[in-house]
Amino acid sequence: MTGVTVRVLGIDPGSSRTGYGVLEQGGEQPRLLASGVIGSGRQGLPQRLARIFQGVQEVIGKYQPQVLALEEVFHAKNAKSALVLGQARGVVLLAAGLAGVEVCEYAPRRIKQTVAGSGGADKRQVQRMLEAWLGRAPQQLDASDAVAVALCHLHWAGRLEVVAT
Amino acid sequence: MTGVTVRVLGIDPGSSRTGYGVLEQGGEQPRLLASGVIGSGRQGLPQRLARIFQGVQEVIGKYQPQVLALEEVFHAKNAKSALVLGQARGVVLLAAGLAGVEVCEYAPRRIKQTVAGSGGADKRQVQRMLEAWLGRAPQQLDASDAVAVALCHLHWAGRLEVVAT
Repeated sequence: MTGVTVRVLGIDPGSSRTGYGVLEQGGEQPRLLASGVIGSGRQGLPQRLARIFQGVQEVIGKYQPQVLALEEVFHAKNAKSALVLGQARGVVLLAAGLAGVEVCEYAPRRIKQTVAGSGGADKRQVQRMLEAWLGRAPQQLDASDAVAVALCHLHWAGRLEVVAT
Repeated sequence: MTGVTVRVLGIDPGSSRTGYGVLEQGGEQPRLLASGVIGSGRQGLPQRLARIFQGVQEVIGKYQPQVLALEEVFHAKNAKSALVLGQARGVVLLAAGLAGVEVCEYAPRRIKQTVAGSGGADKRQVQRMLEAWLGRAPQQLDASDAVAVALCHLHWAGRLEVVAT
Protein backbone atom coordinates (compact mmCIF):
# COMPACT_ATOMS: atom_id res chain seq x y z
CA MET A 1 0.00 0.00 0.00
CA THR A 2 1.41 3.38 -0.98
CA GLY A 3 0.95 6.66 0.82
CA VAL A 4 -0.58 8.35 -2.23
CA THR A 5 -4.10 9.57 -1.59
CA VAL A 6 -6.75 8.01 -3.79
CA ARG A 7 -10.27 9.28 -4.26
CA VAL A 8 -12.92 7.07 -5.75
CA LEU A 9 -16.48 8.01 -6.63
CA GLY A 10 -18.97 5.15 -6.42
CA ILE A 11 -22.17 5.55 -8.42
CA ASP A 12 -25.40 3.56 -8.34
CA PRO A 13 -27.26 4.86 -11.41
CA GLY A 14 -31.04 4.85 -11.62
CA SER A 15 -33.60 6.66 -13.74
CA SER A 16 -35.25 8.33 -10.74
CA ARG A 17 -32.55 8.15 -8.04
CA THR A 18 -28.79 7.95 -8.55
CA GLY A 19 -26.74 7.20 -5.45
CA TYR A 20 -23.18 8.42 -5.02
CA GLY A 21 -20.42 8.09 -2.48
CA VAL A 22 -16.90 9.50 -2.37
CA LEU A 23 -14.17 7.64 -0.51
CA GLU A 24 -10.67 8.88 0.12
CA GLN A 25 -7.79 6.77 1.21
CA GLY A 26 -4.40 8.08 2.14
CA GLY A 27 -3.35 6.02 5.14
CA GLU A 28 -4.79 2.83 6.55
CA GLN A 29 -8.42 3.76 6.86
CA PRO A 30 -10.65 4.94 4.04
CA ARG A 31 -12.72 8.03 4.78
CA LEU A 32 -16.23 8.70 3.55
CA LEU A 33 -16.01 12.26 2.22
CA ALA A 34 -19.53 12.59 0.86
CA SER A 35 -22.55 10.58 -0.12
CA GLY A 36 -26.09 11.21 -1.22
CA VAL A 37 -28.74 10.71 -3.83
CA ILE A 38 -29.25 12.72 -7.01
CA GLY A 39 -32.99 12.87 -7.59
CA SER A 40 -34.13 13.17 -11.20
CA GLY A 41 -37.47 14.88 -10.53
CA ARG A 42 -40.64 14.17 -12.46
CA GLN A 43 -39.97 16.00 -15.67
CA GLY A 44 -39.53 14.44 -19.07
CA LEU A 45 -36.77 11.92 -19.69
CA PRO A 46 -34.26 14.34 -21.31
CA GLN A 47 -34.58 16.69 -18.31
CA ARG A 48 -34.21 13.81 -15.83
CA LEU A 49 -31.06 12.63 -17.61
CA ALA A 50 -29.76 16.21 -17.50
CA ARG A 51 -30.27 16.26 -13.70
CA ILE A 52 -28.30 13.02 -13.30
CA PHE A 53 -25.52 14.22 -15.62
CA GLN A 54 -25.20 17.62 -13.95
CA GLY A 55 -25.33 16.05 -10.48
CA VAL A 56 -22.51 13.65 -11.30
CA GLN A 57 -20.51 16.44 -12.97
CA GLU A 58 -20.92 18.53 -9.81
CA VAL A 59 -19.64 15.75 -7.55
CA ILE A 60 -16.69 15.09 -9.90
CA GLY A 61 -15.90 18.81 -9.98
CA LYS A 62 -16.03 19.15 -6.21
CA TYR A 63 -14.13 16.00 -5.19
CA GLN A 64 -11.89 15.36 -8.22
CA PRO A 65 -11.90 11.54 -7.99
CA GLN A 66 -9.32 9.59 -10.01
CA VAL A 67 -11.77 6.73 -10.51
CA LEU A 68 -15.51 6.31 -10.97
CA ALA A 69 -16.66 2.84 -9.88
CA LEU A 70 -20.01 1.29 -10.67
CA GLU A 71 -21.78 -2.03 -10.87
CA GLU A 72 -21.29 -4.09 -13.95
CA VAL A 73 -24.65 -5.12 -15.40
CA PHE A 74 -24.88 -8.74 -16.52
CA HIS A 75 -28.50 -9.61 -16.11
CA ALA A 76 -31.17 -6.99 -16.15
CA LYS A 77 -34.69 -8.08 -15.22
CA ASN A 78 -35.84 -7.53 -18.77
CA ALA A 79 -35.08 -5.54 -21.90
CA LYS A 80 -37.33 -2.64 -20.83
CA SER A 81 -35.61 -2.13 -17.48
CA ALA A 82 -32.20 -2.62 -19.13
CA LEU A 83 -33.00 0.20 -21.56
CA VAL A 84 -34.08 2.54 -18.74
CA LEU A 85 -31.01 1.68 -16.66
CA GLY A 86 -28.79 2.01 -19.73
CA GLN A 87 -29.97 5.56 -20.35
CA ALA A 88 -29.08 6.65 -16.80
CA ARG A 89 -25.83 4.71 -16.94
CA GLY A 90 -24.92 6.32 -20.27
CA VAL A 91 -24.97 9.85 -18.88
CA VAL A 92 -22.97 8.79 -15.81
CA LEU A 93 -20.28 7.20 -18.01
CA LEU A 94 -20.34 10.29 -20.21
CA ALA A 95 -19.68 12.56 -17.22
CA ALA A 96 -16.65 10.39 -16.38
CA GLY A 97 -15.46 10.33 -20.01
CA LEU A 98 -15.68 14.11 -20.44
CA ALA A 99 -13.80 14.69 -17.18
CA GLY A 100 -11.11 12.12 -17.99
CA VAL A 101 -11.99 10.03 -14.93
CA GLU A 102 -11.15 6.32 -15.25
CA VAL A 103 -14.13 3.97 -15.01
CA CYS A 104 -13.98 0.62 -13.19
CA GLU A 105 -16.84 -1.87 -13.10
CA TYR A 106 -17.48 -4.63 -10.58
CA ALA A 107 -19.99 -7.46 -10.66
CA PRO A 108 -22.73 -7.14 -8.00
CA ARG A 109 -21.76 -10.43 -6.34
CA ARG A 110 -18.13 -9.38 -6.15
CA ILE A 111 -19.11 -6.11 -4.46
CA LYS A 112 -21.20 -7.88 -1.83
CA GLN A 113 -18.58 -10.58 -1.35
CA THR A 114 -15.87 -7.95 -0.88
CA VAL A 115 -17.78 -5.65 1.43
CA ALA A 116 -20.02 -8.04 3.37
CA GLY A 117 -18.28 -11.40 2.99
CA SER A 118 -21.08 -13.00 0.99
CA GLY A 119 -22.16 -12.59 -2.62
CA GLY A 120 -25.73 -13.05 -1.47
CA ALA A 121 -25.68 -10.30 1.20
CA ASP A 122 -28.71 -8.01 1.19
CA LYS A 123 -28.65 -4.22 1.13
CA ARG A 124 -29.02 -3.92 4.92
CA GLN A 125 -26.13 -6.31 5.57
CA VAL A 126 -23.98 -4.30 3.18
CA GLN A 127 -24.97 -1.13 5.00
CA ARG A 128 -24.01 -2.59 8.40
CA MET A 129 -20.64 -3.70 7.10
CA LEU A 130 -20.00 -0.25 5.65
CA GLU A 131 -20.61 1.16 9.13
CA ALA A 132 -18.03 -1.27 10.45
CA TRP A 133 -15.46 -0.34 7.78
CA LEU A 134 -16.04 3.40 7.67
CA GLY A 135 -17.47 4.24 11.08
CA ARG A 136 -20.64 5.43 9.36
CA ALA A 137 -22.76 4.60 6.35
CA PRO A 138 -25.40 6.56 4.45
CA GLN A 139 -28.94 5.76 5.53
CA GLN A 140 -30.26 5.90 1.97
CA LEU A 141 -29.82 2.54 0.28
CA ASP A 142 -28.99 4.01 -3.15
CA ALA A 143 -26.17 5.96 -1.51
CA SER A 144 -24.88 3.01 0.53
CA ASP A 145 -24.82 0.84 -2.60
CA ALA A 146 -22.68 3.53 -4.23
CA VAL A 147 -20.31 3.62 -1.24
CA ALA A 148 -20.09 -0.19 -1.38
CA VAL A 149 -18.86 -0.19 -4.98
CA ALA A 150 -16.33 2.53 -4.13
CA LEU A 151 -15.05 0.46 -1.19
CA CYS A 152 -14.90 -2.61 -3.43
CA HIS A 153 -12.72 -0.64 -5.84
CA LEU A 154 -10.30 0.36 -3.07
CA HIS A 155 -9.92 -3.28 -2.21
CA TRP A 156 -9.41 -4.59 -5.73
CA ALA A 157 -7.11 -1.73 -6.62
CA GLY A 158 -4.90 -3.07 -3.84
CA ARG A 159 -5.52 -0.13 -1.60
CA LEU A 160 -7.27 -1.87 1.20
CA GLU A 161 -7.72 -5.34 2.63
CA VAL A 162 -11.45 -5.37 3.24
CA VAL A 163 -12.49 -8.87 2.26
CA ALA A 164 -14.48 -10.23 5.16
CA THR A 165 -13.14 -13.68 5.97
CA MET B 1 -50.07 23.48 -42.93
CA THR B 2 -48.46 26.73 -41.82
CA GLY B 3 -45.70 28.64 -43.54
CA VAL B 4 -43.44 28.55 -40.47
CA THR B 5 -40.19 26.76 -41.12
CA VAL B 6 -39.63 23.66 -39.02
CA ARG B 7 -36.35 21.85 -38.56
CA VAL B 8 -36.28 18.34 -37.20
CA LEU B 9 -33.24 16.27 -36.34
CA GLY B 10 -33.74 12.52 -36.69
CA ILE B 11 -31.35 10.31 -34.76
CA ASP B 12 -30.69 6.57 -34.97
CA PRO B 13 -28.53 5.91 -31.89
CA GLY B 14 -26.07 3.06 -31.71
CA SER B 15 -23.06 2.26 -29.59
CA SER B 16 -20.66 2.24 -32.55
CA ARG B 17 -22.53 4.25 -35.22
CA THR B 18 -25.17 6.92 -34.64
CA GLY B 19 -27.04 8.08 -37.73
CA TYR B 20 -28.46 11.57 -38.06
CA GLY B 21 -30.49 13.52 -40.57
CA VAL B 22 -31.75 17.09 -40.55
CA LEU B 23 -34.92 17.98 -42.45
CA GLU B 24 -36.30 21.45 -42.96
CA GLN B 25 -39.77 22.24 -44.07
CA GLY B 26 -41.02 25.69 -44.90
CA GLY B 27 -43.21 25.23 -47.95
CA GLU B 28 -44.63 22.10 -49.51
CA GLN B 29 -41.52 20.01 -49.86
CA PRO B 30 -39.20 19.02 -47.03
CA ARG B 31 -35.50 19.53 -47.68
CA LEU B 32 -32.69 17.29 -46.50
CA LEU B 33 -30.19 19.75 -45.02
CA ALA B 34 -27.66 17.28 -43.70
CA SER B 35 -27.17 13.65 -42.86
CA GLY B 36 -24.39 11.38 -41.78
CA VAL B 37 -23.04 8.96 -39.24
CA ILE B 38 -21.26 9.79 -36.00
CA GLY B 39 -18.69 7.06 -35.47
CA SER B 40 -17.77 6.28 -31.88
CA GLY B 41 -14.28 4.91 -32.53
CA ARG B 42 -12.75 1.99 -30.69
CA GLN B 43 -11.85 3.59 -27.42
CA GLY B 44 -13.38 2.77 -24.05
CA LEU B 45 -17.11 3.14 -23.49
CA PRO B 46 -16.99 6.55 -21.74
CA GLN B 47 -14.97 7.97 -24.64
CA ARG B 48 -17.31 6.45 -27.22
CA LEU B 49 -20.32 7.96 -25.45
CA ALA B 50 -18.49 11.30 -25.39
CA ARG B 51 -18.05 11.10 -29.18
CA ILE B 52 -21.78 10.45 -29.68
CA PHE B 53 -22.74 13.23 -27.26
CA GLN B 54 -20.40 15.78 -28.81
CA GLY B 55 -21.42 14.78 -32.32
CA VAL B 56 -25.10 15.28 -31.56
CA GLN B 57 -24.37 18.56 -29.75
CA GLU B 58 -22.48 19.75 -32.82
CA VAL B 59 -25.37 18.96 -35.19
CA ILE B 60 -27.84 20.65 -32.81
CA GLY B 61 -25.58 23.69 -32.56
CA LYS B 62 -25.17 23.97 -36.32
CA TYR B 63 -28.76 23.36 -37.45
CA GLN B 64 -30.78 24.49 -34.41
CA PRO B 65 -33.65 21.98 -34.79
CA GLN B 66 -36.84 22.54 -32.79
CA VAL B 67 -37.38 18.79 -32.44
CA LEU B 68 -35.22 15.70 -32.08
CA ALA B 69 -37.05 12.60 -33.30
CA LEU B 70 -36.02 9.03 -32.63
CA GLU B 71 -37.32 5.48 -32.60
CA GLU B 72 -39.26 4.38 -29.60
CA VAL B 73 -37.84 1.13 -28.24
CA PHE B 74 -40.41 -1.48 -27.27
CA HIS B 75 -38.68 -4.74 -27.78
CA ALA B 76 -34.94 -5.02 -27.68
CA LYS B 77 -33.41 -8.34 -28.71
CA ASN B 78 -32.29 -9.00 -25.17
CA ALA B 79 -31.36 -7.23 -21.95
CA LYS B 80 -27.69 -6.94 -22.94
CA SER B 81 -28.39 -5.20 -26.23
CA ALA B 82 -31.03 -3.02 -24.54
CA LEU B 83 -28.43 -1.85 -22.03
CA VAL B 84 -25.92 -1.01 -24.76
CA LEU B 85 -28.55 0.79 -26.83
CA GLY B 86 -29.83 2.57 -23.69
CA GLN B 87 -26.39 4.00 -22.97
CA ALA B 88 -26.10 5.52 -26.46
CA ARG B 89 -29.71 6.68 -26.35
CA GLY B 90 -29.17 8.29 -22.94
CA VAL B 91 -26.45 10.64 -24.17
CA VAL B 92 -28.53 11.56 -27.27
CA LEU B 93 -31.54 12.44 -25.09
CA LEU B 94 -29.20 14.35 -22.76
CA ALA B 95 -27.89 16.46 -25.64
CA ALA B 96 -31.51 17.33 -26.51
CA GLY B 97 -32.41 18.05 -22.87
CA LEU B 98 -29.43 20.36 -22.30
CA ALA B 99 -30.20 22.28 -25.52
CA GLY B 100 -33.92 22.58 -24.76
CA VAL B 101 -34.84 20.65 -27.91
CA GLU B 102 -38.16 18.82 -27.73
CA VAL B 103 -37.96 15.02 -28.09
CA CYS B 104 -40.55 13.00 -30.04
CA GLU B 105 -40.52 9.22 -30.28
CA TYR B 106 -42.11 7.01 -32.91
CA ALA B 107 -42.58 3.26 -32.97
CA PRO B 108 -40.49 1.50 -35.66
CA ARG B 109 -43.57 0.14 -37.43
CA ARG B 110 -45.17 3.57 -37.53
CA ILE B 111 -42.02 5.04 -39.11
CA LYS B 112 -41.95 2.40 -41.85
CA GLN B 113 -45.69 2.62 -42.38
CA THR B 114 -45.50 6.39 -42.71
CA VAL B 115 -42.48 6.57 -44.97
CA ALA B 116 -42.74 3.39 -47.03
CA GLY B 117 -46.43 2.44 -46.75
CA SER B 118 -45.80 -0.78 -44.84
CA GLY B 119 -44.85 -1.45 -41.23
CA GLY B 120 -42.82 -4.38 -42.47
CA ALA B 121 -40.74 -2.44 -45.03
CA ASP B 122 -37.03 -3.19 -44.99
CA LYS B 123 -34.22 -0.64 -44.79
CA ARG B 124 -33.67 -0.59 -48.56
CA GLN B 125 -37.37 0.02 -49.26
CA VAL B 126 -37.33 2.88 -46.75
CA GLN B 127 -34.27 4.30 -48.46
CA ARG B 128 -35.92 4.17 -51.90
CA MET B 129 -39.02 5.93 -50.58
CA LEU B 130 -36.88 8.63 -49.01
CA GLU B 131 -35.34 9.25 -52.43
CA ALA B 132 -38.85 9.63 -53.81
CA TRP B 133 -39.90 12.08 -51.06
CA LEU B 134 -36.70 14.09 -50.81
CA GLY B 135 -35.07 13.71 -54.21
CA ARG B 136 -32.11 12.06 -52.50
CA ALA B 137 -31.39 9.82 -49.56
CA PRO B 138 -28.21 9.05 -47.64
CA GLN B 139 -26.46 5.90 -48.79
CA GLN B 140 -25.53 4.87 -45.25
CA LEU B 141 -28.38 2.91 -43.69
CA ASP B 142 -27.89 4.37 -40.20
CA ALA B 143 -28.28 7.83 -41.71
CA SER B 144 -31.29 6.93 -43.85
CA ASP B 145 -33.02 5.43 -40.79
CA ALA B 146 -32.45 8.75 -39.04
CA VAL B 147 -33.89 10.70 -41.97
CA ALA B 148 -36.90 8.35 -41.98
CA VAL B 149 -37.79 9.12 -38.36
CA ALA B 150 -37.41 12.86 -39.06
CA LEU B 151 -39.75 12.56 -42.06
CA CYS B 152 -42.18 10.55 -39.92
CA HIS B 153 -42.19 13.39 -37.41
CA LEU B 154 -42.99 15.98 -40.10
CA HIS B 155 -45.98 13.88 -41.10
CA TRP B 156 -47.35 13.27 -37.63
CA ALA B 157 -46.74 16.85 -36.57
CA GLY B 158 -49.16 17.73 -39.38
CA ARG B 159 -46.49 19.30 -41.53
CA LEU B 160 -46.61 16.91 -44.42
CA GLU B 161 -48.88 14.34 -46.00
CA VAL B 162 -46.46 11.53 -46.68
CA VAL B 163 -48.40 8.40 -45.86
CA ALA B 164 -48.03 6.09 -48.81
CA THR B 165 -51.45 4.75 -49.69
